[in-house]
Amino acid sequence: MISMTQNNVEKWGTYEITLKGKAEGNPFTDVEIKAVFTSEAGDSFEVEGFYDGEDTFKIRFMPNRTGLWKYEVRSDIKDLDGMKGEFLCVDPSEGNHGPVRVCNTYHFCYEDGTPYHPFGTTLYAWVHQREELIQQTLESLRNSPFNKVRMCVFPKYYAYNREEPPMLPMSWREEDGRYQVEFNVKFFQHFERLVKELMDMGIEADVILFHPYDKWGFCSMPEEVDKAYLRYLIARISSYRNVWWSMANEYDLIKPQKDWDGYFHFIVEKDPYNHLRSVHQCFKFYDHTKPWITHASIQWQGSLRSWSGEPEIDIGINLIPKWREMYKKPVIIDECGYEGNIEYGWGNLPPQEMMNRFWEGVTSGGYVTHGETYYSEDEVLWWSKGGRLKGESPKRIAFLRTIIEEAPPFLKPIKLDPMMDWDVHCIGKEGEYYLIYFDINRPVKRTLKLPEGKYRVDLVDCWETEIHSLGIFQGQVVIRLPGKSYVALRIQKMENNDDWIILREDAKL
Amino acid sequence: MISMTQNNVEKWGTYEITLKGKAEGNPFTDVEIKAVFTSEAGDSFEVEGFYDGEDTFKIRFMPNRTGLWKYEVRSDIKDLDGMKGEFLCVDPSEGNHGPVRVCNTYHFCYEDGTPYHPFGTTLYAWVHQREELIQQTLESLRNSPFNKVRMCVFPKYYAYNREEPPMLPMSWREEDGRYQVEFNVKFFQHFERLVKELMDMGIEADVILFHPYDKWGFCSMPEEVDKAYLRYLIARISSYRNVWWSMANEYDLIKPQKDWDGYFHFIVEKDPYNHLRSVHQCFKFYDHTKPWITHASIQWQGSLRSWSGEPEIDIGINLIPKWREMYKKPVIIDECGYEGNIEYGWGNLPPQEMMNRFWEGVTSGGYVTHGETYYSEDEVLWWSKGGRLKGESPKRIAFLRTIIEEAPPFLKPIKLDPMMDWDVHCIGKEGEYYLIYFDINRPVKRTLKLPEGKYRVDLVDCWETEIHSLGIFQGQVVIRLPGKSYVALRIQKMENNDDWIILREDAKL
Repeated sequence: MISMTQNNVEKWGTYEITLKGKAEGNPFTDVEIKAVFTSEAGDSFEVEGFYDGEDTFKIRFMPNRTGLWKYEVRSDIKDLDGMKGEFLCVDPSEGNHGPVRVCNTYHFCYEDGTPYHPFGTTLYAWVHQREELIQQTLESLRNSPFNKVRMCVFPKYYAYNREEPPMLPMSWREEDGRYQVEFNVKFFQHFERLVKELMDMGIEADVILFHPYDKWGFCSMPEEVDKAYLRYLIARISSYRNVWWSMANEYDLIKPQKDWDGYFHFIVEKDPYNHLRSVHQCFKFYDHTKPWITHASIQWQGSLRSWSGEPEIDIGINLIPKWREMYKKPVIIDECGYEGNIEYGWGNLPPQEMMNRFWEGVTSGGYVTHGETYYSEDEVLWWSKGGRLKGESPKRIAFLRTIIEEAPPFLKPIKLDPMMDWDVHCIGKEGEYYLIYFDINRPVKRTLKLPEGKYRVDLVDCWETEIHSLGIFQGQVVIRLPGKSYVALRIQKMENNDDWIILREDAKL
Repeated sequence: MISMTQNNVEKWGTYEITLKGKAEGNPFTDVEIKAVFTSEAGDSFEVEGFYDGEDTFKIRFMPNRTGLWKYEVRSDIKDLDGMKGEFLCVDPSEGNHGPVRVCNTYHFCYEDGTPYHPFGTTLYAWVHQREELIQQTLESLRNSPFNKVRMCVFPKYYAYNREEPPMLPMSWREEDGRYQVEFNVKFFQHFERLVKELMDMGIEADVILFHPYDKWGFCSMPEEVDKAYLRYLIARISSYRNVWWSMANEYDLIKPQKDWDGYFHFIVEKDPYNHLRSVHQCFKFYDHTKPWITHASIQWQGSLRSWSGEPEIDIGINLIPKWREMYKKPVIIDECGYEGNIEYGWGNLPPQEMMNRFWEGVTSGGYVTHGETYYSEDEVLWWSKGGRLKGESPKRIAFLRTIIEEAPPFLKPIKLDPMMDWDVHCIGKEGEYYLIYFDINRPVKRTLKLPEGKYRVDLVDCWETEIHSLGIFQGQVVIRLPGKSYVALRIQKMENNDDWIILREDAKL
């Protein structure tokens, strides 16, 4: 029987079919339960369901088109097979722009075309905390600039993460030559509730499927069990539009690249919606050119304006433009160190440097993920458990996000003067917009070679989160700067109707 | 005739023979004038002389052994040929330790075995300034931590360096199919006076023989003229024990490596004392493994704790240890950016970062050179012209120099815990001394795995230039740290007779 079935669902919302039925064998793995969804326009999706405990199966579907959809259940549970239904898919509600996709090669948009600029944070084990802390985390996120959360399905066993989690996601045992897998339905209901909470706040859930910081064996399950888990998780949460698949954190501490490729194939096959897919490394870069990788998710604990480690150097190599060219995909520095003060080198950046890495990353054409690791007696560190944000960088990251969201979309790495601008990061849109970031450098002036036209030039004080107008300029000009670290110049072409603004004399030192 | 000849000279001092004689042709280039110096022990040096104007030739010699030396002049000026003399070489005076040599592969010592730790600065064009400014520069050096000066022979034409210098070093013209070269004796007398002033202050003169920032043609002279210049300069100043030969600043902006090799051969042949030889690059590293290179002189505008620019990375590559292994020679970062605020990316580092690069370099087994470029109306910037030091880093560099000079010599890159210490720079002497630098990172604690024995641990506050004793520790301990950037730990093995000091409990957080 079908129960509790909605009649309407919004585009990119979740349509859920609930079915009651008795399974033979292991209801999590031994039952075929799926539905084919068909739109009036002829789109067709085959979607797997999952066992939700108490003789209940669910099939969840995210329609990508408004209008009438019909479905038919297919199952080896006789009573369910052939069941049919239909529903109306209506316009998305405000704030629902669909799942995030890659667009313009190096960028992201929601499926409705709205640009999406990831400003992520890490909350690796937040779903494994007690409810009070989870609520505090959600409250913190609501007041934060972060619109992406990196979060593990499996609990974390690591420094500052030694407690047993309230629930384990699954268990497995060998029996008669095969693995008996059992999922903790309560855990997954809890997990998907939090994914949905994020969705309602406009936050993408960058779901980390595997990670090495483990004592329960989740990072070393047999492949058959791994795939049962992936299949179950995909069936449960892929209809949430804010889901991204991050195959692993520090994949290379678990197994080498070649062993992961098959897992990617599996996800590509099972996920009807083609959610974003990436993988994060500890040491060895994954080959992000692989077609199943939608964007490069990189750990890089250092300055992005590095010189090469090789003696045959080119001056001032900017790593993100290099990776963009190498992978032809968006680049997210998903781990660049965390603001904090703990004993580990990856977790004790000053807030200035956390902010700096955001600016470096964004103004060289990439995206950056935040994390926070302030030592605390109670061992609640944001980076993993959530709670309260204590750091000073989020305010500055919010400021940067505002600037980027106000800018024309799809800015690319660009130099006003390739010869002289080796020392700055700059993104822009030729002849229209430039954002030049000076990093720790602190010039008192700078020569700009402006393209044709008149440009409004603003000084951006990244730490003080202030923008000061420097005036209108054209041609080759010398701009006065305050001689302090962490400033940027925002340069915007004047519209014709801006012409009434008085042209200032070129500032000359 | 020989005139004004001393009877005594100290070891590694300059013994000078002055000869009067009329030359046929060009006295700078067409006269053979040299002397063979022989010690009682059988050492023999053939040393070229030079024309010093007004029918005067000089031969300068730096004896490396006390006792009686004899010499005999050889010249194609008949009156001078065969002249003989002798003098006594006496013990060096205080502060005279001889020329600096490479020792222990990666380090420097004076010839008497005293360790020398280069803490250099740049004064590229200071010799081309007016005398008042030169005197101010000397006064500044006297009160500075710097014991090496990078200085050009030729004047500099570049931003903030547009004035015509008081004197040009030389001129040349083509005549009858060969080059007529004339040296400005007054200039070289002036130049060598300043080299000697530095010597008297215990400062090494890292003499830059060629550089590209030129409008007079000195960087594009015919090879024959270049060699006449080198020969003349070597004859004049190689007897000053504090001379180093830096073949070029940014050699690759003048000509490629292969064209410089012959110049190195020439210097090796002409310099009787085997002074240190290096070359500094702009973009392309010189092959510092070449046998004529005594130490790697590197330009590196960035963090030294870089990750490789290559995707096949190893975590936390430390460039100086890598270069040490590559070249098997001492490594000096002779240009890492300058403290200041001018418009160029190489010249506007905050003082904290200038200090940081010294600490990074020194605590990873190398040496670093300072420079200062504060914008000034009068265009007198220390980096090139000298004058007054305005920056805040020299005080901190002095502090570091004191720490290094108090440490056991020849510290090497070392890790107390190779697994966990990827994030710090550390040099030490196994089981005896460790200096761990935390860079911008700011842990509130750190686990140390101390080798056998008891160790005195000091917190070094690099910016505040303070040292705080943290106590005596042994075994694996957790050390409390202040949670601020720019700190180091100095860890020194206790002597047995230190045992009366009360052992503190291990600090635990």
